[in-house]
Amino acid sequence: MSLYTGKTITLCEVGPRDGLQNEQKILSTDEKVCLIERAVSSGFKVVEVGSFMSPKAVPQMADTDEVFRRLTKAPGVEYRALIANMKGLERAADCGCVKTKLNVSASETHNLKNLNCTPAESVARFAPIVEAAKEKKIEVSGSISMAFGSPWDSEIPVSTVCSIIDAYLAAGVTEISLSDASGQAYPGQVYDICEEMKKRYPEVKFWLHFHNTRGLGIANILAGIEAGFTNFDSAFAGVGGCPFVPGATGNVASEDVVHAMKGCGVHTGIDLDMAIETARRVAEAVGHPTDSSMLRAGRADRILLRKE
Amino acid sequence: MSLYTGKTITLCEVGPRDGLQNEQKILSTDEKVCLIERAVSSGFKVVEVGSFMSPKAVPQMADTDEVFRRLTKAPGVEYRALIANMKGLERAADCGCVKTKLNVSASETHNLKNLNCTPAESVARFAPIVEAAKEKKIEVSGSISMAFGSPWDSEIPVSTVCSIIDAYLAAGVTEISLSDASGQAYPGQVYDICEEMKKRYPEVKFWLHFHNTRGLGIANILAGIEAGFTNFDSAFAGVGGCPFVPGATGNVASEDVVHAMKGCGVHTGIDLDMAIETARRVAEAVGHPTDSSMLRAGRADRILLRKE
Repeated sequence: MSLYTGKTITLCEVGPRDGLQNEQKILSTDEKVCLIERAVSSGFKVVEVGSFMSPKAVPQMADTDEVFRRLTKAPGVEYRALIANMKGLERAADCGCVKTKLNVSASETHNLKNLNCTPAESVARFAPIVEAAKEKKIEVSGSISMAFGSPWDSEIPVSTVCSIIDAYLAAGVTEISLSDASGQAYPGQVYDICEEMKKRYPEVKFWLHFHNTRGLGIANILAGIEAGFTNFDSAFAGVGGCPFVPGATGNVASEDVVHAMKGCGVHTGIDLDMAIETARRVAEAVGHPTDSSMLRAGRADRILLRKE
Repeated sequence: MSLYTGKTITLCEVGPRDGLQNEQKILSTDEKVCLIERAVSSGFKVVEVGSFMSPKAVPQMADTDEVFRRLTKAPGVEYRALIANMKGLERAADCGCVKTKLNVSASETHNLKNLNCTPAESVARFAPIVEAAKEKKIEVSGSISMAFGSPWDSEIPVSTVCSIIDAYLAAGVTEISLSDASGQAYPGQVYDICEEMKKRYPEVKFWLHFHNTRGLGIANILAGIEAGFTNFDSAFAGVGGCPFVPGATGNVASEDVVHAMKGCGVHTGIDLDMAIETARRVAEAVGHPTDSSMLRAGRADRILLRKE
């Protein structure tokens, strides 16, 4: 039997944030609320709702506060948002967001050029935010983008990723996402890094975040599962991209992941038909075809039904 | 370390046959010869050149005889073609094709409706062809389409696949391809079936043939490698489809497979840049974008170079 069959994983629907923030068309607050509530109805227990960044920098996410206020929050579901600074934390507190995520890029080149410090030093500067969040009873997780490769560096040494994780741990963050927004991760590499991480950091709750830029989104998730990881991001309809990386469009599509996992006997707790219907509405809302094989070809186990 | 890292696989370039036979535009004989010779130059040791079917049924392959005559055949490279009957075998013999492939669908429903016999009975009828081929010193391999799922059946029992393999073995065919032209295979299923096949038929040289209809082409190949299989089909630029199955377009793209394998430390012996350039020429020749992540986004390890 394959190394993934019978396992259970948790998916976070990151479409509302990492997907929609890369779309030209800005959805209305009600459209966003409706899609998030649908994702939760279909079985998602974790959703990345939006981000509390400067509305000038990311206009698509300017109404994240209002989305949080209008959402009917289901019990047992985690609604998280990205923050970058103290101002973001305050906005989170004001609108009832109790789970946040900080981000740093693993690219030393990029970080040194823009912030004149290493990624680990960037993370150390997050400490006061984590401290303030504790007082507000807001959870803080961390993410590391370019953890598997970077457009600014010939490679990202695992030691760099470890130094960032160490900095997160020193700041009091124990839930960490390894992200491949540039779509450069390979399944073999994912397996090796995950094995290493599990050994080094048994206390960390890890997430993996893959884009399908080079057709490896699901293969990378399966490699992560084989290495014992259980938490993965995906985005409805496969929306998304990476502002710095040409051609890096598309988070791995939630409905494609749910379909593949179902077929492999991996439990996600998510209703596939509902996920496909959500994706259909997302593609309609953004107004263009997206990288979703379920929207193109439908369920492999429903060809018969589709012919009738 | 992952279960595939360090392994060596053989890819067959099936684009000239399974890809181009599904294209509206018919390429010229010289275009085909040129693309096949390029594929071989890039490192492919096995190529599916065309098929000897009725030119009325498959006009795209009407010139397969002429393609064989014009090809400069490289030593150590296998040039194979699909045949369906004695007439096809004779055409193969006449143009210097020394490796052929027969095909049967694993769908009992489909077979009973069209031929009034089971798939295994169909294969038994191939025996005289295999016999005649021996005299002509032409090798015969077999393939089983819909081996992982079928649009005509709710499922394809493994016992059906085994009965077809038994029939092939009885007819003297020991090289067998399990094909998923309808794009219904899942990695977990691939792993399980491959394990079963290896145990039951250690004497068979197996091939796996996947389409990327539901984004699982490469994940399915990795599952096959994990289960110990080493021979896989792929098609330049991801051209292809399945005439019976709506939405089932696209063999898994050769250049995407070579890229993924390279990144996973799996040896293919194929030059990635040459494979990408071949794919670019194929997409240009067929005149429409194809399902190739390399043509869309380029090599993950070349983002730096592309920015310069």
